[in-house]
Amino acid sequence: MNVEHLLFGAAYYAEYLPYERVEQDMEMMERAGMNVIRIAESTWSTWEPKEGEFDFSKLKQMIETAAKHHLNVIVGTPTYAIPTWLVKKDATMLAVTKNGQELYGHRQNMDITNPTYLKYAKRMIEKLLDFVVPYPNVIGFQLDNETKHYGTAGERVQKMFVESLKTQFPDIDEFNREFGLDYWSNRINRWEDFPDVRGTINQSLWTEFEKFRRGLVTNFFQWQADIVNAKKRPDQFITHNFDFEWHDFSYGLQPEVNQYDSVKCMTVAGADIYHPSQEHLTGAEITVCGNIARSLKKDNYLILETQAQGNTEWLAYPGQLRQQAYSHIANGANSVMYWHWHSLHNAIESYWKGVLSHDFSENATYRDVTQIGHEFQKIGDKIKNLKKTNSIAVLVDNESLTGLSAFPLQTTGSYSYNTVLRWLCDCLYRNNIEFDMVSSKEASYSNYNCLIVPALYSATDTLLHTLDDYVAQGGHLVTTFKSGFSDEHLKIRHDMQPHILNKCLGIHYDQFTYPEHVGLSFVSEEDAADASSFAGEKNTSDMDSCVKEWMELVTCDTAAPVATYRHPAWKEYAAITKNEYGKGSSLYLGCYFDADLLEKVLIPYVKDAIVTQYAFPVILKRGKNDAGNEVLFYFNYSWENQEITYEFENATDLFTESRISTGDRFTLKAWDVKILEVGR
Amino acid sequence: MNVEHLLFGAAYYAEYLPYERVEQDMEMMERAGMNVIRIAESTWSTWEPKEGEFDFSKLKQMIETAAKHHLNVIVGTPTYAIPTWLVKKDATMLAVTKNGQELYGHRQNMDITNPTYLKYAKRMIEKLLDFVVPYPNVIGFQLDNETKHYGTAGERVQKMFVESLKTQFPDIDEFNREFGLDYWSNRINRWEDFPDVRGTINQSLWTEFEKFRRGLVTNFFQWQADIVNAKKRPDQFITHNFDFEWHDFSYGLQPEVNQYDSVKCMTVAGADIYHPSQEHLTGAEITVCGNIARSLKKDNYLILETQAQGNTEWLAYPGQLRQQAYSHIANGANSVMYWHWHSLHNAIESYWKGVLSHDFSENATYRDVTQIGHEFQKIGDKIKNLKKTNSIAVLVDNESLTGLSAFPLQTTGSYSYNTVLRWLCDCLYRNNIEFDMVSSKEASYSNYNCLIVPALYSATDTLLHTLDDYVAQGGHLVTTFKSGFSDEHLKIRHDMQPHILNKCLGIHYDQFTYPEHVGLSFVSEEDAADASSFAGEKNTSDMDSCVKEWMELVTCDTAAPVATYRHPAWKEYAAITKNEYGKGSSLYLGCYFDADLLEKVLIPYVKDAIVTQYAFPVILKRGKNDAGNEVLFYFNYSWENQEITYEFENATDLFTESRISTGDRFTLKAWDVKILEVGR
Amino acid sequence: MNVEHLLFGAAYYAEYLPYERVEQDMEMMERAGMNVIRIAESTWSTWEPKEGEFDFSKLKQMIETAAKHHLNVIVGTPTYAIPTWLVKKDATMLAVTKNGQELYGHRQNMDITNPTYLKYAKRMIEKLLDFVVPYPNVIGFQLDNETKHYGTAGERVQKMFVESLKTQFPDIDEFNREFGLDYWSNRINRWEDFPDVRGTINQSLWTEFEKFRRGLVTNFFQWQADIVNAKKRPDQFITHNFDFEWHDFSYGLQPEVNQYDSVKCMTVAGADIYHPSQEHLTGAEITVCGNIARSLKKDNYLILETQAQGNTEWLAYPGQLRQQAYSHIANGANSVMYWHWHSLHNAIESYWKGVLSHDFSENATYRDVTQIGHEFQKIGDKIKNLKKTNSIAVLVDNESLTGLSAFPLQTTGSYSYNTVLRWLCDCLYRNNIEFDMVSSKEASYSNYNCLIVPALYSATDTLLHTLDDYVAQGGHLVTTFKSGFSDEHLKIRHDMQPHILNKCLGIHYDQFTYPEHVGLSFVSEEDAADASSFAGEKNTSDMDSCVKEWMELVTCDTAAPVATYRHPAWKEYAAITKNEYGKGSSLYLGCYFDADLLEKVLIPYVKDAIVTQYAFPVILKRGKNDAGNEVLFYFNYSWENQEITYEFENATDLFTESRISTGDRFTLKAWDVKILEVGR
Repeated sequence: MNVEHLLFGAAYYAEYLPYERVEQDMEMMERAGMNVIRIAESTWSTWEPKEGEFDFSKLKQMIETAAKHHLNVIVGTPTYAIPTWLVKKDATMLAVTKNGQELYGHRQNMDITNPTYLKYAKRMIEKLLDFVVPYPNVIGFQLDNETKHYGTAGERVQKMFVESLKTQFPDIDEFNREFGLDYWSNRINRWEDFPDVRGTINQSLWTEFEKFRRGLVTNFFQWQADIVNAKKRPDQFITHNFDFEWHDFSYGLQPEVNQYDSVKCMTVAGADIYHPSQEHLTGAEITVCGNIARSLKKDNYLILETQAQGNTEWLAYPGQLRQQAYSHIANGANSVMYWHWHSLHNAIESYWKGVLSHDFSENATYRDVTQIGHEFQKIGDKIKNLKKTNSIAVLVDNESLTGLSAFPLQTTGSYSYNTVLRWLCDCLYRNNIEFDMVSSKEASYSNYNCLIVPALYSATDTLLHTLDDYVAQGGHLVTTFKSGFSDEHLKIRHDMQPHILNKCLGIHYDQFTYPEHVGLSFVSEEDAADASSFAGEKNTSDMDSCVKEWMELVTCDTAAPVATYRHPAWKEYAAITKNEYGKGSSLYLGCYFDADLLEKVLIPYVKDAIVTQYAFPVILKRGKNDAGNEVLFYFNYSWENQEITYEFENATDLFTESRISTGDRFTLKAWDVKILEVGR
Repeated sequence: MNVEHLLFGAAYYAEYLPYERVEQDMEMMERAGMNVIRIAESTWSTWEPKEGEFDFSKLKQMIETAAKHHLNVIVGTPTYAIPTWLVKKDATMLAVTKNGQELYGHRQNMDITNPTYLKYAKRMIEKLLDFVVPYPNVIGFQLDNETKHYGTAGERVQKMFVESLKTQFPDIDEFNREFGLDYWSNRINRWEDFPDVRGTINQSLWTEFEKFRRGLVTNFFQWQADIVNAKKRPDQFITHNFDFEWHDFSYGLQPEVNQYDSVKCMTVAGADIYHPSQEHLTGAEITVCGNIARSLKKDNYLILETQAQGNTEWLAYPGQLRQQAYSHIANGANSVMYWHWHSLHNAIESYWKGVLSHDFSENATYRDVTQIGHEFQKIGDKIKNLKKTNSIAVLVDNESLTGLSAFPLQTTGSYSYNTVLRWLCDCLYRNNIEFDMVSSKEASYSNYNCLIVPALYSATDTLLHTLDDYVAQGGHLVTTFKSGFSDEHLKIRHDMQPHILNKCLGIHYDQFTYPEHVGLSFVSEEDAADASSFAGEKNTSDMDSCVKEWMELVTCDTAAPVATYRHPAWKEYAAITKNEYGKGSSLYLGCYFDADLLEKVLIPYVKDAIVTQYAFPVILKRGKNDAGNEVLFYFNYSWENQEITYEFENATDLFTESRISTGDRFTLKAWDVKILEVGR
Repeated sequence: MNVEHLLFGAAYYAEYLPYERVEQDMEMMERAGMNVIRIAESTWSTWEPKEGEFDFSKLKQMIETAAKHHLNVIVGTPTYAIPTWLVKKDATMLAVTKNGQELYGHRQNMDITNPTYLKYAKRMIEKLLDFVVPYPNVIGFQLDNETKHYGTAGERVQKMFVESLKTQFPDIDEFNREFGLDYWSNRINRWEDFPDVRGTINQSLWTEFEKFRRGLVTNFFQWQADIVNAKKRPDQFITHNFDFEWHDFSYGLQPEVNQYDSVKCMTVAGADIYHPSQEHLTGAEITVCGNIARSLKKDNYLILETQAQGNTEWLAYPGQLRQQAYSHIANGANSVMYWHWHSLHNAIESYWKGVLSHDFSENATYRDVTQIGHEFQKIGDKIKNLKKTNSIAVLVDNESLTGLSAFPLQTTGSYSYNTVLRWLCDCLYRNNIEFDMVSSKEASYSNYNCLIVPALYSATDTLLHTLDDYVAQGGHLVTTFKSGFSDEHLKIRHDMQPHILNKCLGIHYDQFTYPEHVGLSFVSEEDAADASSFAGEKNTSDMDSCVKEWMELVTCDTAAPVATYRHPAWKEYAAITKNEYGKGSSLYLGCYFDADLLEKVLIPYVKDAIVTQYAFPVILKRGKNDAGNEVLFYFNYSWENQEITYEFENATDLFTESRISTGDRFTLKAWDVKILEVGR
């Protein structure tokens, strides 16, 4: 979905204000250059304080005052936090999870399949829509918020799961075989005997249940979209605020939702991205999670939430907030919306601070936001609807994520998959190689020159054949340890590993271990020299114990070893291999190792995608704007000034309107950004 | 309450003896110079082995044998551990907490508001009193023991809580507003809809529940005091064994009890203090917790329990036990009573050892105790009822403690408040500046020259105005980050921070963060020089990263900065400020930083209170005895001999009766104590 | 039980195969030199897929195919994993533990006293036996698998416990006295008042409950043995797969089972031993746990499970698997059986890999196994039924283990007892001193020259008198801190410590603490010099803080101090003492200290048992074979070649058939083994 202008604003909660100040707030927003607010997504109890009594007066005030101050409105359906009276009416809607039944209090505590919940939620949404749809400045709707399955595992949900298994496996013997249920007498001979799945020690069964629950989320979105579509104006969009695996911040692919399926019922993908700040701000999360968001509809996306002041440790250094905003836009976002406008005076998110602090004064953050807002007003139309054409894609797969949570690497637990994903993506990011994400459900990847496939632990034969064919037809495949190891039900393959892929990779293995004091020996002399100097420069890798988390004892069939293991017991085995296959080639990373050495292996392999010799902390991002011109964004993620020699075609600096020519030099100051429009 | 002689003794449990030896034990006690025992507080099942059958034969034997050996008796009401038959009768008295219902076994597992429990407890207390009151050597009663609310949160207790809220908030809308319940749809529109508070994510609600539960404890004490008062002789006192926040030892203010309210129904405050030993003995806990005890009735207090051998790691070095005893007395205690006489042969406290080991032999601890007992007999009357006149007070506040547990500093969790309290108190203690504690509920603090207010996170306008007025009228206020931040219901203030106090402090701030690689730059050159050398000497503070846990970005209005932040992003902001205001002044610590640098800032500010140049490990404590003479206690908390030049008026050494004159030098040996009576 | 040939094989689960390959598997086994499989112990749901419907077709196939390939079969009774239909029938058989009721899923989740479970289990066993007993190649039966009580603590089990207490204590007052229940009002005046034992804070009660539950396990074995004995052929043996305390690997004595009682109903002891590998392989677990297994029937034992590839971190270096196999045999095992043949394709043990990987190819492990199998075929008869005559024994005691779990050392928690056990045993092992284990229930230990008694925390007077008498009659006793401290109900002794033993040890103590910065001073000058150089050589012990976990302040009565504490406060006390008593002597270790210093103290004391000057990583094991010849096994547990001068009588190398004479030198390569038969 293209936008007319960049959307810039914040989530706004008049309901939470300690005193009446909607007019003042919106006057401040307008003054800061904001043009949109997001409202209503967590305040059911305000709109329906008692069963069947609706009160939209606050909503009316917010929307009408917004209109006066030229602010558009995105309305969220308020279904992810339920009112006290509703729970009192029917407490069974509190989800039963692995830990028993939820207590009331936190949001997202309900069973999203509970009929009473759904009945009342539907009425709530319909009443809300009847009220807000006619307002011209209401431009779109957000379905629910950060929806997940919340661990729902009550009796009714488990029955639904068994029904879904029955459909999938008409023959119960086949079900037992595929899931290996003879093990420890877990065999189920009659569907009626199905035990409480919460106690299972069979990861095939558990991850199947997870997949089923991701399906519940998809269904929930479709159900809401149907309600909204029946009421909304054609020009109003539908979106959702997708979030990511959480690691004290947005980290990687979300395990509880199949976002590719879920987004189908929406007009435009939305997301929230929160990330480390201060010394730890790198822009990597904005890129990795933003790329997932961009991949959902293969289109621009909305940032519906990101940090203003955020958590206590996130208070931005001067300049960082502006850098973050342009980083989102440079990645293909069409909005920057803060969570949230004002800081809360009670409850659990009181220290997750908004643009304004608790005193509502014009603080440093408001001044930074105002600068961004005014700049967007000036140059926003030159950088909106930015289109990217990347030759590299990274494949993401939720079944593999769940599979690696069940059978994790040595120390990374449920983050195992995203650890590998980030290892690869961050390597690209830091070397200024832009990439797309792609779903594992695509029919073909032939539009990419290079496809990077992290730890594809759980895969169908179809997918593996697609990858094999991709290489045969001239693609360049990078993949890692664990790929192809088990099927779609997490049953480990019983033939040569990596299943099917061994052909295009030209290798096989039948053993693996956790590395202890294991290093890498590069095979070619140049490589060896490089690696030492490389490690020396970065001063982080110990060549004698740089292998971590996982190592496979790889034997080369047609492949050539890039590196072998430096260890007396495993020195005969390959650690990293390259193979020519059909019209293409492949690179196999048979172990996890230090990130600085990964650069040495991966970057040369994807050399076609290299556009600049600069690397982190200088980050360059590019895209084509509405005028068809290429826009270049330079970021400096450090306290040190960076001297840049401009290496592209003549361009115009969008902030200063000054011209820059190939070979010119300029300085990027600490935490600064420079935006150039090429060919103008 | 003044005592005739220092009380010296131990808790005694004839019930727990593996064989009959009451006569032998009391003979040993008398021989050791003991004159008091405390009995009965945890042995309900011995006095009432079956419902309604009472057997006080062991009690009779203990009291009568005690009389024979000139031992007084303090009798505890046995209500903090319930008999098996009572629970079998009505299991609902086992408290329902956040973790579900308690199992029988440990003490303090009951709901202190349960009617059945209260009914049987009342009868037990009355029967006990009928039996023991007439004995002349029974000198007082301890109500229950280390009473708390034990996390009681069952349905009935929650209903009582809702009733208390109804009374406090006749208008339910006002309740919703003050507690910010619109957030996440937590709004309660009818009191009947009140959800289970155990699930709440609203810290205002949770801390209000904690306050309510502290009220239950106060009521429980009053209820017991009424029962005891109806039976006891006028000369018999009522006390309680208050304890402190536990951090493997007595650490600071007790969160579960409002001791200032609770003590009102008692004659004299009592307490137990347990503390690190061996290399870790500093005397700080004896002072900090002792000062709280002394503040409860602004009078001398009883130490009803402290360690003899104590936990395995606490076995005292030679000399330490004696030093500890005098440390209590020097702080205003009128008793030293060990927990306990003999070590237990079964159950969970078998390794919390008493004076005697399990073999009842005369061990090293008994010999140390005997030395103390004989010294008390000789010099006790010169050091009992010691009165202190301190010009400095430290304000303590339970609502702020609970508030900071809910919104803690970066790493200190539920200990956040006491961490700040100890940071300030220990600084005074180590520099030999004696101080009082005062409750936050006082009407005025004008009797103190300097008032130190740690992290007053939750405060009424009234209290903050009292502090403002204190400074205006000539007081010197030291306060810290977080003070004034939220109101009495933990609603964060929505005007300039620190709310109300910004005037007398002459500063404001609207942002804060966790410090990472943040140091301090002292503003005046002398300060800077001092700070470097100071840090150098102590060799602990890294001036570039000495700021920890919390930092506020302070702007000076009328105040002068003492230190600013050493960090490129925050260098414009003040970290520590001083202000002149009205007839007084204030010192604001806007961040938490290394303790050795705190000395540099705090000690000069309170310089009027400095009486000696000696500092830890030499500790000096003072007070006026019954004769009106000043008594000086010198302690050496180290293995190294300390050479002291005596700097006060001529005095007499109470142990040797030798005279000492101003300017004389003496040696304090390892872990030794010297006591001088001035002007005699 | 003597064997005709060494048993060599694996656990085999045709039920778990992803496709039919029994014939192929067994052909591979036979080719690898295997001669036995173990089957059936966890597959009830396969044999009885629905209630009362039995299907032994897979069993038939396995046994008959095995016969064809000359493989014997050990059949396990399939009672440690229950089918889904059985739980659906009666969910009460899922054990109620401290954490509530078990969910279905994992094995060993049942209450082993549940009548429904027992009824159906009996029928299952009988049907199975009817089917398999007649097969000639079925050589024995394993009762259940790794049986324990699984924490069962439901109402019925607790009633059984109370009944057992009633029998033990006809006088309830005596029960209260012995268990010290007056403490915290825990007194029980009527057995009907007995509270839920899961909440108890009385360790005497809890450990008594543990002892009772170990009794349930013994009864369960007897019940199964009775069923099997009624059906089996006389030549078929009964065994069980005993396991050990688990510390990520087999660590020491099993707390939940009294193996000495349990084994009585069996023909031969069986065990599983899993151990660290790669850099961490030392052979110590194979020896310590193997010695326990050998002690159960004072006879050779079966290794029914040990790792093939095992857990991911256990993948053996080249040579290690062979070394492990001979290490078991050299210790007196008559079998080496891997768990398991093939790696599993689903569920929780998918990464606990067997001989074959998931792809069933001939991998490195299979090749190692084949070498072992062929060697066993060649030399097995020379090393089977190996008999050992050791002059040293280490006494093990389950009550002391449980007691030290309840009252642990400073940091070792529930592993405290086994930590001390391993400290002593590993010292012997590393110095090539072979030893027996003996139960604490023996009537006399006079057949051993030296008896080593680790931390005998809980002991009857009878046992302590036996030890006293042992020394008096000429034995040499080594014992440690904590021994004799409490009685059989964990009531701490109330006379001189160590109770009764103080006489033969010639010492006493009444205080102890956790050591902090405490070292050892050796008393004799030679000792001091040795100790320094010793510590110096090994470069690990810090003489100033080598004491850890526990220290007793020991006073010598008749004993002579070997070492005193190096610490200003405790320097008067002995740490290690020696005593002459009657015709024997004793060595007391009053504290836990660094293992390298233990060698200095312990090895000289047991010098009679020293047979070689070589020490770890060279390990020597010995035994007499069927021919009455001594067999010597040399192992090199390191990457470095070891040069050995042969110091025994002329012998024959069993692998090469070459002769070796006294004084000859040979080289042991990395992870290699050499086996010599003396006098041939």
